[in-house]
Amino acid sequence: MSTETSHSMPVPAPARTAKVLVRADDLRALVAGVFRARGTREAEAAAVADALVWANLRGIDSHGVSRVPRYLELFDKGESVPDALPSVARPRAAIAIVDAHAAPGPVALNRAADEAVACARHCGVGWASVRGTVHTGAIGYYTSRVADAGLAAVGVVAGVPNMAYAGAKGAAVATSPLSVAVPAGRHGLVLLDMATAVMALGRIAQLKAAGKELPPGVALTADGEPTTDPALAKVPTPVGGAKGSGMSLVFEMLASGLVASPIVPGYHSGTKEGRRHRQNAFILAVDVSAFLPLDEFTATVDDTVDAIKSLPPADETREVLVPGERGRRSQAERAASGIPLGPKVWRELSEIAAGLGVDVPAPIG
Amino acid sequence: MSTETSHSMPVPAPARTAKVLVRADDLRALVAGVFRARGTREAEAAAVADALVWANLRGIDSHGVSRVPRYLELFDKGESVPDALPSVARPRAAIAIVDAHAAPGPVALNRAADEAVACARHCGVGWASVRGTVHTGAIGYYTSRVADAGLAAVGVVAGVPNMAYAGAKGAAVATSPLSVAVPAGRHGLVLLDMATAVMALGRIAQLKAAGKELPPGVALTADGEPTTDPALAKVPTPVGGAKGSGMSLVFEMLASGLVASPIVPGYHSGTKEGRRHRQNAFILAVDVSAFLPLDEFTATVDDTVDAIKSLPPADETREVLVPGERGRRSQAERAASGIPLGPKVWRELSEIAAGLGVDVPAPIG
Repeated sequence: MSTETSHSMPVPAPARTAKVLVRADDLRALVAGVFRARGTREAEAAAVADALVWANLRGIDSHGVSRVPRYLELFDKGESVPDALPSVARPRAAIAIVDAHAAPGPVALNRAADEAVACARHCGVGWASVRGTVHTGAIGYYTSRVADAGLAAVGVVAGVPNMAYAGAKGAAVATSPLSVAVPAGRHGLVLLDMATAVMALGRIAQLKAAGKELPPGVALTADGEPTTDPALAKVPTPVGGAKGSGMSLVFEMLASGLVASPIVPGYHSGTKEGRRHRQNAFILAVDVSAFLPLDEFTATVDDTVDAIKSLPPADETREVLVPGERGRRSQAERAASGIPLGPKVWRELSEIAAGLGVDVPAPIG
Repeated sequence: MSTETSHSMPVPAPARTAKVLVRADDLRALVAGVFRARGTREAEAAAVADALVWANLRGIDSHGVSRVPRYLELFDKGESVPDALPSVARPRAAIAIVDAHAAPGPVALNRAADEAVACARHCGVGWASVRGTVHTGAIGYYTSRVADAGLAAVGVVAGVPNMAYAGAKGAAVATSPLSVAVPAGRHGLVLLDMATAVMALGRIAQLKAAGKELPPGVALTADGEPTTDPALAKVPTPVGGAKGSGMSLVFEMLASGLVASPIVPGYHSGTKEGRRHRQNAFILAVDVSAFLPLDEFTATVDDTVDAIKSLPPADETREVLVPGERGRRSQAERAASGIPLGPKVWRELSEIAAGLGVDVPAPIG
């Protein structure tokens, strides 16, 4: 624990209600320390911390360090194994199967991204499937890593059902995200990272917690009726109805089916095992330079971005953005001035760290 | 021309207003005959006919034989070449670049599907890009062919902008479809085939032609404002706002960028060449049997389909469907009892065929 905060230990400080600003490096060190203290190896603990803090830097706070307590809970239950290392099979030249052995998501997904890149460098395209991990964080982190290496990437995660399926009642399929990352030149990489739900679960939970009315179309009641009443909202709706739930369903078949680890049928069998938290995923990498010189490709992507950004805006006061642009700005800003965390998240993290003997850095604001 | 209809040649029959029922085989023969008469080689003419009639069988009439006049117009303008044969480069073991040389879409896309399958059989996964084709028809036709061979498939088409982009006015990106096909066992293959627009262009055009009010959320005015007025509706909206237009944009970067044939920047440069009809595409094939025995995979897909179909329906009178199920039923029904065509489509096709000396089959109803 740092000197700046240790003086308050004997007498707890009054609960903060404003956001706390923490330096990205400090937050990484804290999270890595917590994972190391729980038994995760040094490099893997740093990898988990980097993936979670990246989400906060990008403004995707729902997938950031607020998830740390959940990982620890999964360790406690034995549903995730802190020091598990994935094993990899390469049954053919362009594919890899990464068995996570219940390692935390970032450990398994980083390995998958590396395998997909290696396959693609060799064969032009590479596909890495991930079996049996937990909470992967923001899938865009991994596709970005592939794109930073000059390859295009597609990433998909399948998980336990928490979203409606068009025409059915209740939670039926997962809000399985799709991410596509494309390297650019002058512009930063183009990064699509979207859930197959209309609105992210975390955002709905925030509105529900605040008792605020939901926008129309984002959630259904237990009976499968659309609702804007936060008290009645039970499941988020898929984007575009049958389109979003159809994407989620085929993503489950590809991500989970290819590794013989289906999630959807087990979940609906109603057994405890079937409802256990777990995720499968795949990363596809395409080696751009096998098709054309990379700088020709990135010049084309730049031209395409320029064409979109030059479109007349529907609202004169609002800039036309390309996928990933808002996140990149957030990243630059938060890297410079710190990551704002809700007081509850910060308190929880600080207490976990302190309890494990991990230094708690001083917030910078 | 068949004997049943030839008696009406001297005195034109009164214009039909009801739908005309035509046997699928007859329709294939008619369309293949038209393409052969316009210079397309025999096997390729049959391939185009099969792809278009498949769309009609599946109930996707907007992508079926109603498009024949448009192909002929593209031949007339020199924007498509009836007898062009694609050339293929295989720069690495798992990728192929199919240069369509302006061949009709089905000729190029069939070749791409075959190449993707060959790459995948060898390497586990295969990616085939298509450069410079025209109107591909329903992309689900090609992913289905791959899935029928026991592989999973993803297909994407990029084209000339005809859809709104979130936050901008006017047509900005294409309604680029995404298709995913997954082989199943007891159940038919699962086939997602969706445009990135909320509502298909063809359906909006039908409602506009009928002067009917549009459902909310499907179209924008020239100023980028949402409208339900068919007279003011100019461009269809992307599904899920930034999600749909973001998918379309990254699909363009992958499909067009990798073959050095960008469409979006040229279109917005406002030149005539930039607005010329053309399409690029890619097909990805995944050899399931490289991951696990195919029958294990298809059993998992069957279980997943069963789980979804057993969900309580939101509306007791409506069955819960999986992607492709409605189309498969239509296919079975129309294969047995004939394909219903609008009288205008049938008249146009009959006149084109008669003008080229191609037999016009007798409708069966």
